[in-house]
Formats: sequence, C-alpha cells, structure tokens
Amino acid sequence: MLNRVRSAVAHLVSSGGAPPPRPKSPDQPNATSALPAAPAEAPKSPPAKAGGGSAAPAKTAEARASFSRPTFLQLSPGGLRRADDHAGRAVQSPPDTGRRLPWSTGYAEVINAGKSRHNEDQACCEVVYVEGRRSVAGPPKEPSPAQGLCFYYWGLFDGHAGGGAAEMASRLLHRHIREQLKDLVEILQDPSPPPLCLPSTPGTPGSSDPSHVVGPQSCWSSQKEVTHESLVVGAIENAFQLMDEQMARERRGHQVEGGCCALVVVYLLGKVYVANAGDSRAIIVRNGEIIPMSREFTPETERQRLQLLGFLKPELLGGEFTHLEFPRRVQPKELGQRMLYRDQNMTGWAYKKIELEDLRFPLVCGEGKKARVMATIGVTRGLGDHNLKVCSSSLPIKPFLSCFPEVRVYDLTQYEHCPDDVLVLGTDGLWDVTSDSEVAATVDRVLSTYEPNDPSRYTALAQALVLGARGTPRDRGWRLPNNKLGSGDDISVFIIPLGGPGCYS
Amino acid sequence: MLNRVRSAVAHLVSSGGAPPPRPKSPDQPNATSALPAAPAEAPKSPPAKAGGGSAAPAKTAEARASFSRPTFLQLSPGGLRRADDHAGRAVQSPPDTGRRLPWSTGYAEVINAGKSRHNEDQACCEVVYVEGRRSVAGPPKEPSPAQGLCFYYWGLFDGHAGGGAAEMASRLLHRHIREQLKDLVEILQDPSPPPLCLPSTPGTPGSSDPSHVVGPQSCWSSQKEVTHESLVVGAIENAFQLMDEQMARERRGHQVEGGCCALVVVYLLGKVYVANAGDSRAIIVRNGEIIPMSREFTPETERQRLQLLGFLKPELLGGEFTHLEFPRRVQPKELGQRMLYRDQNMTGWAYKKIELEDLRFPLVCGEGKKARVMATIGVTRGLGDHNLKVCSSSLPIKPFLSCFPEVRVYDLTQYEHCPDDVLVLGTDGLWDVTSDSEVAATVDRVLSTYEPNDPSRYTALAQALVLGARGTPRDRGWRLPNNKLGSGDDISVFIIPLGGPGCYS
Repeated sequence: MLNRVRSAVAHLVSSGGAPPPRPKSPDQPNATSALPAAPAEAPKSPPAKAGGGSAAPAKTAEARASFSRPTFLQLSPGGLRRADDHAGRAVQSPPDTGRRLPWSTGYAEVINAGKSRHNEDQACCEVVYVEGRRSVAGPPKEPSPAQGLCFYYWGLFDGHAGGGAAEMASRLLHRHIREQLKDLVEILQDPSPPPLCLPSTPGTPGSSDPSHVVGPQSCWSSQKEVTHESLVVGAIENAFQLMDEQMARERRGHQVEGGCCALVVVYLLGKVYVANAGDSRAIIVRNGEIIPMSREFTPETERQRLQLLGFLKPELLGGEFTHLEFPRRVQPKELGQRMLYRDQNMTGWAYKKIELEDLRFPLVCGEGKKARVMATIGVTRGLGDHNLKVCSSSLPIKPFLSCFPEVRVYDLTQYEHCPDDVLVLGTDGLWDVTSDSEVAATVDRVLSTYEPNDPSRYTALAQALVLGARGTPRDRGWRLPNNKLGSGDDISVFIIPLGGPGCYS
Repeated sequence: MLNRVRSAVAHLVSSGGAPPPRPKSPDQPNATSALPAAPAEAPKSPPAKAGGGSAAPAKTAEARASFSRPTFLQLSPGGLRRADDHAGRAVQSPPDTGRRLPWSTGYAEVINAGKSRHNEDQACCEVVYVEGRRSVAGPPKEPSPAQGLCFYYWGLFDGHAGGGAAEMASRLLHRHIREQLKDLVEILQDPSPPPLCLPSTPGTPGSSDPSHVVGPQSCWSSQKEVTHESLVVGAIENAFQLMDEQMARERRGHQVEGGCCALVVVYLLGKVYVANAGDSRAIIVRNGEIIPMSREFTPETERQRLQLLGFLKPELLGGEFTHLEFPRRVQPKELGQRMLYRDQNMTGWAYKKIELEDLRFPLVCGEGKKARVMATIGVTRGLGDHNLKVCSSSLPIKPFLSCFPEVRVYDLTQYEHCPDDVLVLGTDGLWDVTSDSEVAATVDRVLSTYEPNDPSRYTALAQALVLGARGTPRDRGWRLPNNKLGSGDDISVFIIPLGGPGCYS
C-alpha cells in the first residue's frame, strides 16, 4: 500500500497537476543522440525476468512503471487506489471538469479481475509538434506554420509479463515518431513528389537529382514513385523499431520489464494512420458500416511466418522445438504412425509418418486465446520482451517476435463524416468478449441518446463499451447480461470521432 | 515447319483420336513409386537453359513438349498450324461436334503475337477417379460408389522460358492430386472428424486414437479440430510440391525446360478449390457480383517474403544483390547521400545513408509487369525453373520461388446458382488488358444472348473474352476498340458454369 501511495504521489508530481497535453513546443534536443531519451528521473528498478518459470524479483518502492495510469486521467491518490482495485473494477475516464482530451476523444479503462497485480494497459493521447530538422542545429527562430507540422496521436499499449514496456512505450513512442518525421517536415508540405535522394547533411532538405530519370524500358532503369503517405508509414514503422531498440538498450540497465502490444493512431495532413503490432484492434464505424482498420498478430495468424523462421534458422529452435505443427502433442508410442501436420508452406493438413524429431514440442501450438509460441507467449508482434525465455530453458523467444506494425491508412477527406462516425480502438480485453457488430450497435445506441454537439458523448460511449465487456459481478465472476463470462482482462478503449472537431476540413 | 508437322502427328497419335477425357479408371499403379510417372514414350530433349543471357540450345525434332496443344481441342494438323500462327492469332476452342468438355466448361485460347515461338500456355480439363489406397495392393475388385471418389479438375499453366514445364504440369499435376487424395478416400466420405493419427500401414485406414483426448487447459494439452476441407487443401498443396520435385528429378534427365504458373480448380464433394501459384487469376461472377478467387504472386506482391529470405540467407544473394529495395538503381556517386529504401519489414519508405553494399543490384526491382526478382523473372510462384540462373551469372533463382499455391475454397451448396453464374479462369494475357468488371460485363452481355440451356454459351463466352483481350490487327499491332494495345501474350480462358450441369446438387 505504501508503494501505491508513493507511486501515486510521484505520478502527481511528475504530471505537475498540469492540464491535459496540448500542442507541444519541441523538446530540448538531446545533444548526444537523436533518439528520445527516457526521463532522467526514471527510477532504476531491479532486473525483471519475464516469462513463466522464473521467480519474479521483488519490486522496489520506486518501481513506478508498474503502477502509473495515463496522466490525462488526472487521478487523485484515492482515484488511483480505486483504479487499482481488482474487486471493484471501477471504470476510469478523464474527469468531466477541466480540459478534455484532444480531438474530443473519448476514453475509458478498467483493471483486470486479478490476473496481474496492476493494470498493464497504458494509453497516451497527445498533440505533437514536429519542428523541421533544419532548425535543430541552431537556436529556434520564430516558427512559421510552414516550418513545422502537428500530428494528433493516440496509443494503446497492452503489457504482459510486467508493466514496464507498456509504460515506457506510452511515454516515448510518439517521440520516436516525431523524430522520424523531422526529416520529412518540408517534404510532406511540398506537393511535388518526394525526392528519392537527399544530400548527406540532414540539415539541408534536398531536391531530386534530375540525372536519375532514365528510360522505363526495364527494371534496371525504371524509377518508382513514392508517395508522401508511404513516407509517413515508413516513419511510423521505423519509430516502432527504434522504440524496441531503446527498450533493449535500457533493459541492460534493468529498466524495462515485459513486453506490450501497441496500437497507435496518427492523424497527419488529412490522413489517419493506424499502426498495429499485437492483438489490440481498431475499427471504424461509419454510418453503421464496419471498416476494419487492423488485424491481430497471434501465433495462429502468424503461424507460417514463425514456422518459416524456424525452418530457415533451426538454431533458434534449440533442439527443443519442431517447426512443424501437429493438431495435438505427438506421443512417443506413436513413432512410425502417420499424423496430421502442416509446415510453413501449408494452410491445409496432411498425414506424415512420425519420426523422432517430431516428438519435440511444436513451435506453434494451441488455438484462439490459448495459442502460444514456444509454449510461452500468445502474441507475436509488439515491443519489448527482450528478456523473454522459454519456460525452464534459456532459449530466447524474442527472435520470433516482430516489433513492426501493420499500418493502414484512411483518408479523412474522402468522405463527409457525421458526428456518429467513430474510430474505435480497444485492447483485447474489449474484443475477447465483444464482436465488431456488437460494438457498432453500442455506438449507435449510445450516441443516439446524446446531442451531436455534446462533448461528453464519446467518453460515455467508451465507458459503455468497457462496462459491456467487463460485465457485473455475479455467480462468482464478472458476467455479461447473457450470463457469459465478461472479460477478466484489463480493458482500454479510445473513441475518436471522425466527423468531430478535428482540424482536417 | 518439319518439326511442327512431326509434333502434330505425334500429338494426334498420342491422343489417339479418342473422345475427350471421361471419368478414368485408375492408372496402373507404379510398382516402384507412388508418384505419377512421366509417360515412357516421352522424348528426351536436350538440356534447356532458361533465363536471359544463356544461348538457347538447338531444339531437336523430338522436342514435342514445346508444341503440343490441349488434347481436348482435337486439332487436326492443319488446325494445329493455324493455332501456332502468330500472324493470324486464330482463337481456338473445342469443336462444336463430338463430346463437350466435362461440366459444360467453355474454353478458348490464342497464341501470342510473337514473343515466343509457340503458345506456352497449356490447359487441362478432366474428371478424375480416385480409388482408395486400400485397393492398391491387390487386384481391383468391383468398385462400389463408397470406395472411390471423383473430382472434376481444370488447370491453366502459363509457361515461361520454354514450354516444357507447362506441358508436363498439364499432363501430370492432376495425377499428383489424385495420388494425394488416395489416402483420404474413406476419410472424406465419413462425416465424423478426420482421425488425427493413422496406423503406419497406408493400406489400412485408421481410426482416431482415443487416448489423445486430454483436457483443453493449455496449449500443451489441447487438440485442434481439422476439417475435411483442410485435408483437401493440404492434398493440393503437397501435390504442387511433388509435381515440382518431379520436374527437378526429370530435369536431371534433361526433359523439363522453363517454368510455369499454375492455376488449378478442383471440384470435390460440393466444394470448389481454387489453387493459384503465379499470376493467372480466377474470379467468380455471381449475379453480376465479382468474387475474387485468387491473388497474383509477383515480385511486387511477394516483395517482403523475398527480402526476408535474402536477409536471413544472404548467401543466396551471392554478393551480387542487396535485399533492400530502392526506388531506382543507386549510383556510385551517391555514396554517402541519403536515399529512399524499404526492407523486409516495411511497407512504407524511409531515407537511409547510401553505403557501399547498397550499390549492389536490388533483389526486387521494377513495377507492374516489369517487376523482376534478380532482374530476371516476373513471377514468384509456380512449377519448374530449376535451371533458372541470373543473367550472366551462375546464381540460382529457384530458392526464391515458391511452388506452393494459395488455395481458396468456395462452397457450391451455400448458394443457389443460376446458369449465368460462372467461375472465370484466365492466364495473365487476359487480365493484363481486362479488368474484373470488364469481364463481368462480358459475362452478362454474352450469356444474355444465349438460351440458358444452350451448351455452346460458355465456349462463346470464353471466345469473347479471348477476342476482347487480343483485339484486332490495326496500326502495326493488335488493338482494342478503345485503340489501346491488346495483349500480345498467350491468352487462355476457362469458363466453369456454377449453376450448370455439375453433379453437386
């Protein structure tokens, strides 16, 4: 309890009682590195061993990372205790008083029913100002609108095996994105196609080299057109990788525990970029229609990628695993019999004669929420997990995990949105018990009871979705109205209105 | 010319003037191997070097493979000459007289405008009887309907760098599928779930081992349900691989030249399986709606798979190629500058500083029809190509090519089809100049001019599609009505009526 209070105080001090995030002035550039640095005051927590089998180390009182909630919730110490209470599972949202979230965003969250000590989801909602690289070297001059860019940013981070990675990603990933966009500030605002080649000095935005335009007769001499949009996608992809690399570096300083899924939305210059690495999900509900904006990355959906890697790099299997999948564990007495299997090339199944090495444990096994890589982890993309080892083994799992998101783009200017059109982001706590169409029905039901210009309608919708997935305590569990089990997981939801007060018109 | 006539005669002799294929009695089993063997009379042609750069060896008069047309066309020697005439480009279809193709299938083809000596497309349409494995050992007994299975089969094979692979695949791939299905004859006809494990003797269909049913608590102990459908998918996938392996073996005997895309349809027990490896395409046109039944596998669509392989196995790049993609060839003078690139993890683009090894040629380059792997080949899946080397190099390309199809399944019993609902298969000669919606419009236009029970309507539709893609000779080229260039490629089209006379009701 002391820990909790100390953490809550630290949290309040670090957020400074300030209003929710506004368009930022650029941070002080870090002289030694272009990468966003972890805050200097970040406490050193002891090394966290993730994965099953290893004893969890004792947490110090300073392990703030495992017990912070998003700053924008403006939680008092008492509120923080309520947010951390597995028995009550009170739904949390930003307060009605004071400044709302940017873009009239709605948000709600609830802690799990006891599966981990704290809520391992984290969230971030910011407006980020990107100053062009040119100004980085000298003292800032009066910024003109053409010199900088703003992007809106939303992030959901679903942690596992510790809260450190999710907490760190929620603090820093948008800074990595900003860093990646710095080189592009002028290019993105110039309607001509991006230059394929830039001079070597980052401070001087380059122009296209005319000598590269040669005949299109063959692939040797052709030139590919690259869009502004694909530069933003590339910036987001690389930001995820740099975030992951930073976690790896700071892990050596024993700061980052566990890993996290990351679902991120960037709004920039009229387009919405949805980047997903993990099993969170984003959908657009537009005029009642559902538009999927992400897909989940799990041992099942990425089976063939994982198997291919195990096949090409058998040393990663450590002699303990087989890259083949079988519908169940093969038993020694079945040697010589023929069992169904599939390999990295197959979506169907066929019979094969069981040989000795088929008795190894399969790299990918299980179904649905029970599917696992190396019998350990149920998601295959995300950030962190550099410590993760196979249970009772020193075999690392990280080589099979990808930190790269899939990025989908939605052009906000191509459709006239009404106030009931929304982008819904949710961690798997929502989607495990709620279908896309149930979410769409809730969108319709809740928003129709509020005036279109009522600013609280999107928070009310987020709360309704979280409550609907959590259920109510009954019959020794959290239950939905249909008496099925509600989600015992952490649940976090953002509602981003597409026809709302954004600056995209 | 002598070659052509000899080949034509050989073709007529081998087809024996027989009526089109009927449900077959099982072939004589091959005592030494379960694999379908190439016909004993197959001529030994000299080794064929594929790919650019190598001088093509002289063809012998016996190189029958390079000049056969599908048996079901029943071409006379004169007809065969007309089918092989690049100047006239006469559209070929099975004759109106005599037996029609199974399932009232429509078919039409035309030779290219001169890009290769002969038509390198091949086609096959068969009804194949599968006898269960149990009967293979002993003499055939009176088959009862429960003992065997029939499947309908259609295949389009688009050859490149020689006609041998396409010709061989059109003769043998359905036999490999039959071979793979032999073990499944009883299982597929048994409504209970397929047994996960079979006894080791192939002749004895097994039953499920009850001891494997354990609690579903974890991925260690769960058991996956495997459907009948996924067994057929697995059988087709493995048949493609075995066909490819047979080509590799017989290549050593110098018989198989070049490679081919393969688009195959299997109708079995109420379901249509569409397997595609390459850049042919299948769509269903149902009540005017377009349902894609395949996707194309090209250097562009498979870029990330190829790059990942080059990244994980750099020895496959031979020090000549880089796995990175650049929007154009990097020039030595650009060393140290920053150029756009993307790697195996990225769909977007970003800038990187050019280093020495970036001056290597990119593994994947070019766009659209000009996209190439290792500057050589424009498709990334298919059969054959075991000889294919990088131009002016001994670096093999085959490791980057996949012989595995993507299989999509369409349940014919889930929808009441009318006679105008069709599955359209076409080689890229059709799709390069014809969009899905143009095909759908032609389906509507042509079929509406024929009575629903007119058996010639599907052939007429295939002919209309081929003619529409070929165009007419005008202004020094084959031109479409809109004056754009028609396809100069070989064009082959199957029309499979979904509401037609199939036995699926």
